[in-house]
Amino acid sequence: MTQRNLYLSNTPVDEALEKYMEAFGKIATVRYETIKTEHSLGRVTRHATYAKYSSPMYNASAMDGVAVVSEATSTARETNPLTLKKGKDYVIVDTGDPVRHPFDSVIMAEDIVETGEDMIKIFASAAPWENVRPVGEDIVAGEMILPSNHEIRPIDIGVLLSAGITELEVVKRPQVAIFPTGTEIIEPGVVPKEGDIIESNSRMFEAMVAQGGGEGFRFPPIIDDYELIKNAISEAADNYDMVIVNAGSSAGTEDYTVHVLRELGEVIIHGVAVKPGKPVILSIVKGKPVIGLPGYPVSAYIAFENFVRPVLTLLSRREEGAENEVTATVSRRIVSSLKHREYVRVKVGSVDGRMIASPLARGAGAAMSLVRADGFCIIDLNCEGVEAGEKVKVQLYRPKEEIENTVVIIGSHDMLLDIIGDMMPNLHRNMFVSSTHVGSLGGLMALKRGECHIAPTHLLNEDTGVYNISYIKEIFDEPMVLIKGVHRIQGIMVKPGNPLNIKTVSDIPGKRFVNRQRGAGTRVLFDYKLKCEGISPQDINGYDREAATHMAVAALVAGDSADCGMGVYSAAKAMGLDFIEVGPEEYDFAMRARHLELPGIKAFLEILQSDDFKDALTKLGGYAFANTGEIIKL
Amino acid sequence: MTQRNLYLSNTPVDEALEKYMEAFGKIATVRYETIKTEHSLGRVTRHATYAKYSSPMYNASAMDGVAVVSEATSTARETNPLTLKKGKDYVIVDTGDPVRHPFDSVIMAEDIVETGEDMIKIFASAAPWENVRPVGEDIVAGEMILPSNHEIRPIDIGVLLSAGITELEVVKRPQVAIFPTGTEIIEPGVVPKEGDIIESNSRMFEAMVAQGGGEGFRFPPIIDDYELIKNAISEAADNYDMVIVNAGSSAGTEDYTVHVLRELGEVIIHGVAVKPGKPVILSIVKGKPVIGLPGYPVSAYIAFENFVRPVLTLLSRREEGAENEVTATVSRRIVSSLKHREYVRVKVGSVDGRMIASPLARGAGAAMSLVRADGFCIIDLNCEGVEAGEKVKVQLYRPKEEIENTVVIIGSHDMLLDIIGDMMPNLHRNMFVSSTHVGSLGGLMALKRGECHIAPTHLLNEDTGVYNISYIKEIFDEPMVLIKGVHRIQGIMVKPGNPLNIKTVSDIPGKRFVNRQRGAGTRVLFDYKLKCEGISPQDINGYDREAATHMAVAALVAGDSADCGMGVYSAAKAMGLDFIEVGPEEYDFAMRARHLELPGIKAFLEILQSDDFKDALTKLGGYAFANTGEIIKL
Repeated sequence: MTQRNLYLSNTPVDEALEKYMEAFGKIATVRYETIKTEHSLGRVTRHATYAKYSSPMYNASAMDGVAVVSEATSTARETNPLTLKKGKDYVIVDTGDPVRHPFDSVIMAEDIVETGEDMIKIFASAAPWENVRPVGEDIVAGEMILPSNHEIRPIDIGVLLSAGITELEVVKRPQVAIFPTGTEIIEPGVVPKEGDIIESNSRMFEAMVAQGGGEGFRFPPIIDDYELIKNAISEAADNYDMVIVNAGSSAGTEDYTVHVLRELGEVIIHGVAVKPGKPVILSIVKGKPVIGLPGYPVSAYIAFENFVRPVLTLLSRREEGAENEVTATVSRRIVSSLKHREYVRVKVGSVDGRMIASPLARGAGAAMSLVRADGFCIIDLNCEGVEAGEKVKVQLYRPKEEIENTVVIIGSHDMLLDIIGDMMPNLHRNMFVSSTHVGSLGGLMALKRGECHIAPTHLLNEDTGVYNISYIKEIFDEPMVLIKGVHRIQGIMVKPGNPLNIKTVSDIPGKRFVNRQRGAGTRVLFDYKLKCEGISPQDINGYDREAATHMAVAALVAGDSADCGMGVYSAAKAMGLDFIEVGPEEYDFAMRARHLELPGIKAFLEILQSDDFKDALTKLGGYAFANTGEIIKL
Repeated sequence: MTQRNLYLSNTPVDEALEKYMEAFGKIATVRYETIKTEHSLGRVTRHATYAKYSSPMYNASAMDGVAVVSEATSTARETNPLTLKKGKDYVIVDTGDPVRHPFDSVIMAEDIVETGEDMIKIFASAAPWENVRPVGEDIVAGEMILPSNHEIRPIDIGVLLSAGITELEVVKRPQVAIFPTGTEIIEPGVVPKEGDIIESNSRMFEAMVAQGGGEGFRFPPIIDDYELIKNAISEAADNYDMVIVNAGSSAGTEDYTVHVLRELGEVIIHGVAVKPGKPVILSIVKGKPVIGLPGYPVSAYIAFENFVRPVLTLLSRREEGAENEVTATVSRRIVSSLKHREYVRVKVGSVDGRMIASPLARGAGAAMSLVRADGFCIIDLNCEGVEAGEKVKVQLYRPKEEIENTVVIIGSHDMLLDIIGDMMPNLHRNMFVSSTHVGSLGGLMALKRGECHIAPTHLLNEDTGVYNISYIKEIFDEPMVLIKGVHRIQGIMVKPGNPLNIKTVSDIPGKRFVNRQRGAGTRVLFDYKLKCEGISPQDINGYDREAATHMAVAALVAGDSADCGMGVYSAAKAMGLDFIEVGPEEYDFAMRARHLELPGIKAFLEILQSDDFKDALTKLGGYAFANTGEIIKL
């Protein structure tokens, strides 16, 4: 029982799905229910639906006016008006009123003149059936109004009711039981201790099931106990259309799920050649699909999309959503394993009409990268990867239009980018900011390659003491501008109370340090300070340990994974750390001069120059505003 | 009170909306509520949300394996394995377990060999922090995880919970009161009498409000009574975020709504230059938007989209959905009034890679045309229309991919087209059929212009007695095929019991006839029969009264709007009419020979040749199958 299941299979995604759908497809039961038409939005029809009544059900006036006998009006002319008497020659009709024999035509209210009580004049003859909607014009009783397997829209509800259909048979939403498992997981809201993992996947699945046309039923977490898991799955297989077991699908010591499923039913697949998302279990228990999903959020998400969604689509009889696929140029090389299909999260930006996909963090645990991503780039099995500049297909999950209205920022990280990103769509409807953090130099190189509009940078020229300008001049040979940003206080972040008594950079040797990645302005500043103090990088324990953002450095110090790191005041403050000032630095924005005309850039500048923006940064602390928003032409 | 409000204004759509939003925007109140994170799918955040906890919250193992002290493993080599003792040199860790000081690295289970109880061998040194996810790798406490005004997705729910956010403030769904009004309307389910209109718009609005992020509350219909309407609106304005009053927004005798709204509040706009959808009332009562929508379903739909949706978007703070817009070639001339923006419903087909938009019925009452349409083509104010062959922008409300997978059929109408349309996506996933009814000759001309794949036709050559072939040969000068379809019994449809004792075509003069449109095969057959009998079209009362389908003819006879008409048996049977056989005819399918290779056409042929298809037609009656599915090359 404590044996590890070391060996998962490595079945390709398509083959795994095909095998599973073949096994399950034969026994899949779609359930139906009869519901009221007014509650049928988004539901899928079982049968074709035929109209019970015609619409209109009688010859109906199409206008407000008077119904007449067309033959009797044949002499009316502009020059020879005809006088008609109410009751005898005409009746008043409003739109939708019946036009009854012998009346067969309607003259619009605008075209008549009242000449006395119950007397009117007309100035033109009326053609038969003019302004009359004949019975069945819209809907004819007996005609097919909706086909089978049709997802009902608002207009369909209107037409169904008009045609006398007050209830109809639709596919019952598949009911999906969701079991979080694991001794280490705790419920959201419980204060976590070290080793605890807040259970969050099941609620994500619940929402994904709802989006897929099903109803998710999330059960409380089950600890890693063979019998408990077995009983829960067995009972759920009796009562639900599908069961999801989360985590325990890998091959760890306490991964019981596959053993339980082998005992209860048939395991069709254990392990799929996909990254992230490999440890998937596809099984059938008592004729119901029971799927074990991996525990890492990103793996869980991808495995759900690949395997749970097709089953849901089958059981809910819905059309699979059209993939929102675009072709984009990859900004950085993506290396991939030949053995897996890999889903690489990408940010997608549109710069000068070209779609650019920038790969994000690839760890299976990096759920935030899914939140930040605009879509997936799929690197297929037997493909070693993609070179920078190559075109790839990207499955977007953000509307293409939104991407085209986004200012793309790549470069040094600062929390002010999040603040601008938050303010932008609020102030400028349908305008967005996306930011990717690769350090100052990385951003300037991305800008050079045309992958972004703006590169935030804080690179010190050690000779002149001037920030940024010399770097831009050296890299670019076209008209550029530097938008002055903010002054930031950089410093050393240490634990509260500064227990190791670190006072300057020269106190860092011998302490556990965490550095920023190569090309980051903070690292350049740190190197400069080391040089000033005559300290070699080799003397720094952790010089090669890299974190990608100020907050990540702060978190490592706060978590006692390091004793100190360099960063900005706001990050230290956010994590409750002490902060030893090293000095201010200039955090600016580089961009092409011709991009100044873009509406998104204008909006960006407007925000940068606004008082709201400065107020928000002042609240964070550690910023100063000397010439924020000033444009320097280079 | 019985005065008609003859004069609506004719304000352009954009101007009307701008005026209204300006008036309402100033006083609009967005409401908020705090809900549990797990219930937040699709909701819109009020504020930016910041992480409470980091994820991981501690240095966590990224693998199943053993945690070691990296420094202590530095001598391990393939050729010089190192033996480690449990507890002292290593601890077993599963994925997600904490890696505690002094351990700082994890070796994967696959890379170790158990050599005895609590003893393992390793064959390579471990680098510091290898296979360890540092605290905050995914989410750092204090960082912004979601911006304000963000519509929550499943992955966001996962990340919020992981970050310790168990509830959050979101925009409260705007609550919209919906009042159907009108003395003539009846509730769905009530058996209608002449003059009754089944109330269906309010349920369509309810669904549209739900799609727009609000909650619709539909009230029972109110009769046309000034005080009743006034009290209902006044009370609703106190208790709801928005009020919709349906019908009574025009200028008819019993259209009280505008008077009520003038008494209760301020009417900003009454009448908009849009077709259909002109009689709209935009008003504000007690600070709440109260909108009067027209009664015709299509007008109601368009007016909702133009005016209710923007208000809902404002109150729900959602992004407006990106329009799914394509450029298409118009198949027929569309004439439009200079005075209105006109929304023309179109079917859109993709033939030989070209998008073709074919206008559908334009009446405001034609709700079925909305169901059948694939989108709208907008003819703007001050534009007289569009010529056939011109390119237009079409707002699709069907996925573009689906349109590209659709076999486009234009020509003579038969119920078998509905049956094929229903069978197609059930048998061939993601393959569709669309059919437009313009008569046999009209279909051949559309085929000639490259607007469809298939033209169903039943045109008799009066000289040879052979159906269809001579027409195709005359019209086309490229390789064509004729797919043999079915034999249909054509006849005269009369009221049950045949009260006027009509026995042949020669009995029709003196009776009220309804004809098919020019170019319809049935009309050609009727003309042929008239000629045989020596009867002149002028002797037929109703020769110029045209209906577009067999079912429409049958409905007019059943509704006593005509005494007789020509059509097929199945239509007569569906409407409970008597049927006098005139003779069988051959209903076939013309297409280009090269299109035989298209997957959609292959699927079409497969269905045509199937027993299921024949069974379905046999149930309808009036069909025979001589050589159904046979391909004749021309």
